[in-house]
Amino acid sequence: MRKILFFWAIILGAYSCIQSHKSESPTNVKVVRKGAVIMAKPEKLALYKKLHAHPWESVITKLKECNIHNYSIFYRNGYLFSYMEYTGTNWKQDMQKLAADSTIQAWWKLTDPCQEPVSFAKDGEWWADMEEIFHSD
Amino acid sequence: MRKILFFWAIILGAYSCIQSHKSESPTNVKVVRKGAVIMAKPEKLALYKKLHAHPWESVITKLKECNIHNYSIFYRNGYLFSYMEYTGTNWKQDMQKLAADSTIQAWWKLTDPCQEPVSFAKDGEWWADMEEIFHSD
Repeated sequence: MRKILFFWAIILGAYSCIQSHKSESPTNVKVVRKGAVIMAKPEKLALYKKLHAHPWESVITKLKECNIHNYSIFYRNGYLFSYMEYTGTNWKQDMQKLAADSTIQAWWKLTDPCQEPVSFAKDGEWWADMEEIFHSD
Repeated sequence: MRKILFFWAIILGAYSCIQSHKSESPTNVKVVRKGAVIMAKPEKLALYKKLHAHPWESVITKLKECNIHNYSIFYRNGYLFSYMEYTGTNWKQDMQKLAADSTIQAWWKLTDPCQEPVSFAKDGEWWADMEEIFHSD
């Protein structure tokens, strides 16, 4: 009886351990990495940097709700490059959800005038999507 | 006695669980995100893409040994943008280690002729480092 109890305690411990690992790193989440490029207007660069150094908490929350994670923006010589990891299953729908949010609209009202599309952007393209040609975990 | 055994089995299970979590996500690792930009020579783009679609396993191994993780390269209209996460504590030393490796040297012998620095690169700068101006986990 003692051995059986001991056995079940080990099984119980192992089971909860597996479950907690599962919840931390879900195996079914497919991460899509997205890179894009846009220009910063020289006269608005300082404002753009200031806004992004202290982003609104509500913007960050909404990004996460729309399955955008590990999102960074880099700058050099007029070029803004963004990198993000998308963990959702419907990019178009999530982008519509993001664009429909009043906080995001207020944020973009400040940030959009700081940017202009690259010369090689397609008609109507704001951030110009880039192609992932290499990845190593 | 039975209860004590049961108690210790639970403690043992919990301890191994905590240890295995620790090894998966070390709390002391500081991640430095690095973005950089370079040009792809149009006539060498196909070769560059082909090499990066099937990178040598030995190159990937060496990158990891030098604490480079989650490394991606994106392309658009001549521009190559790289994103990586550095988890080491001595970037300069790790880059020297990388550059001293014969496999990496052989890889760069193939990839370097496919690239040229951006017009705004500093003297001697190959990939032009960008400044991280925004990040959200």
